[in-house]
Amino acid sequence: MQEECKPTMNTGLRGVTVASTKVSDVIGAEGKLIYRGYLVTDLAARTSFEEVVHLLLHEKLPDKEELEHIKQQLTAERHIPGALIDALKTCPSDSLPMDILQAAVPMLANHDPEAADQNKEAAVRKAVRLIAKLATVLAAWERIRTGKTPVSPDPAMDHAENFLYMLFGEKPDSDLVHFFDVALVLHAEHSFNASTFAAREVASTRAHMYAAVSAAIGSLSGELHGGANVRVMQMLKEIDTVDRVKAYINTVLDEGRLIMGLGHAVYQTDDPRAHILAPMAKRAGELAGETKWYDISTVLEKEGKAAFKARKGIDIYVNVDFYSASLYYAMGIALDLFSPLFAISRVAGWTAHVIEEQYAGAAPKPTLYRPQSKYVGEYCGPDECRFVPLDER
Amino acid sequence: MQEECKPTMNTGLRGVTVASTKVSDVIGAEGKLIYRGYLVTDLAARTSFEEVVHLLLHEKLPDKEELEHIKQQLTAERHIPGALIDALKTCPSDSLPMDILQAAVPMLANHDPEAADQNKEAAVRKAVRLIAKLATVLAAWERIRTGKTPVSPDPAMDHAENFLYMLFGEKPDSDLVHFFDVALVLHAEHSFNASTFAAREVASTRAHMYAAVSAAIGSLSGELHGGANVRVMQMLKEIDTVDRVKAYINTVLDEGRLIMGLGHAVYQTDDPRAHILAPMAKRAGELAGETKWYDISTVLEKEGKAAFKARKGIDIYVNVDFYSASLYYAMGIALDLFSPLFAISRVAGWTAHVIEEQYAGAAPKPTLYRPQSKYVGEYCGPDECRFVPLDER
Repeated sequence: MQEECKPTMNTGLRGVTVASTKVSDVIGAEGKLIYRGYLVTDLAARTSFEEVVHLLLHEKLPDKEELEHIKQQLTAERHIPGALIDALKTCPSDSLPMDILQAAVPMLANHDPEAADQNKEAAVRKAVRLIAKLATVLAAWERIRTGKTPVSPDPAMDHAENFLYMLFGEKPDSDLVHFFDVALVLHAEHSFNASTFAAREVASTRAHMYAAVSAAIGSLSGELHGGANVRVMQMLKEIDTVDRVKAYINTVLDEGRLIMGLGHAVYQTDDPRAHILAPMAKRAGELAGETKWYDISTVLEKEGKAAFKARKGIDIYVNVDFYSASLYYAMGIALDLFSPLFAISRVAGWTAHVIEEQYAGAAPKPTLYRPQSKYVGEYCGPDECRFVPLDER
Repeated sequence: MQEECKPTMNTGLRGVTVASTKVSDVIGAEGKLIYRGYLVTDLAARTSFEEVVHLLLHEKLPDKEELEHIKQQLTAERHIPGALIDALKTCPSDSLPMDILQAAVPMLANHDPEAADQNKEAAVRKAVRLIAKLATVLAAWERIRTGKTPVSPDPAMDHAENFLYMLFGEKPDSDLVHFFDVALVLHAEHSFNASTFAAREVASTRAHMYAAVSAAIGSLSGELHGGANVRVMQMLKEIDTVDRVKAYINTVLDEGRLIMGLGHAVYQTDDPRAHILAPMAKRAGELAGETKWYDISTVLEKEGKAAFKARKGIDIYVNVDFYSASLYYAMGIALDLFSPLFAISRVAGWTAHVIEEQYAGAAPKPTLYRPQSKYVGEYCGPDECRFVPLDER
């Protein structure tokens, strides 16, 4: 196949097509995000997270019976081993929650007799397990680190509601459950971003599902990736009042910095997810009795776009992190759980990609990711350094 | 810069140069592996693992004072928190050791107040910590899973000797200490292989050292990568006697399979590390009173090469895994620790690469790895699938 030639060295592989995929498509110019053929806007408006899990793992939207089946599977897999709870209790309460999740995933493997099973059907079962259990791990950790007892999952509740119930220890408001379910749908998949690429890279060595997902969590923990919505919230807190938005924008532009949540590597228009999150952030703010963060966000979006246009002549667009920040904050979720919330949704996409990486062909793909590098270090001699013994150094 | 155009899609990035590096060079055609300018053959013959750690992290071979300093630092950082020992004790004894290591690394982050410190000097300290502690974690796990008490590190011993002491619970034979030290030197670094690429990929999001190294362990756990020397040993056990080597080769060739440990993605000649490992495998076998595995290996190398040449007309070369298998086995190390041994050495290279990824320039490199993918899935409509509500599915 003829491929376009792109520079690949020291570009972070931007614009370089590394693989074909059937999991999702991002049409940046049109602001479209598509999971297995379906617009994320349709999915967010009309499906639950469980339906999206089925779509991603089984490559089709479920019918009623299939939906019931995947719900039952997810519900049955929510519990986590008592031994893992004990392990979490050994961790200092100020541990970074992303580190907790990254550690917990290979520890879950220790309790899964199918961990090393290389069969595709086992991989799908492991995916379901991980999607179900990662939420429980996160909720358990939030309880443990705040000195509370972990809440057992409630099989009567769907995934979103049950997570909030385990997190807060009480039945959550139905509006918030809906908002959170939509947020789970919106964050479930986004093609070859850094964390998904990490998952696929690890899976390409035939490492198991847990190893790959743990690596993805590590990648997501970086502030350039999953940490972005935290930085949005920190920015909103720094601004603090609506009347300070304009001054903040001017300062940022004067200093040549960026406005967190504006701009995206892929979209050349507003991120389709932002427009779905915004009204939910508003309503969640109203429910919490504090709409300030949403209000600052809307003014910041409008004035920030105008200022970039006026002063730099460029159009800048709102991304997914811009309104998820104020939504999660209004829901009463701790700032350092924002990235972990991303993880408990994106695990659906990661696992779908791992399955594709390992089983898309007739046999596991033999080409593990093994790029080249160009050595630009010194050679001390004509070919390489003449070795100098310790006594002569 | 003008770069050669290589196909990138679905090729596992083979032959694609993704970054410049000063850490190491592999000259495949000449069978040369170079760490920061020095031939690995020189380093293996004349340096210790501690000197190589200094070379990789500080970009120069240490003088006597610097060597003493890095030894002191490594020795001082060997201990692991009691809480981590407690966490390991919660894990089932049949846990995969690579899963244990992958989980333990982010748990070490929980106990490191500098975990999230983005300063370069802190990154180097974290590198030293990880190199020191990963060996202790592995030895502790081996003790725990076999019902023994973890052995505290002995500050009077160097890294290689101390590891074997913690693993076996007694002062190890001095020849074995030397062999293991050389093995640590030989496995410390190998440019952008899959695990190193995973570490750099995770680091590129500005995730911390522990997150990146944990991901690398996940990548190394795959049987196509760190699992290769285990498969060599399994093959040797399947062959079992020297007189069955030829029949084994014929069977493998008849079935179009590969001989484990023969062939490498990068070298077009014998792996320089193999010729250093081979005599150590022989001597370790003699010390253990069982040279069979080494004997099978040498015959298999000779006859395997000849058979590939005769029947397929191709030259095939011995790689690093071919003789490390019988060396480790003769040292009395459990098969499922072979890949973890790789990890406790390669962590030196991984951490050097993470530092380069994050601090090679004046500021943290802004281009996180974010490749493109090509969507080859279906669209159910002209642009994308028309959404079908649940009731109509």
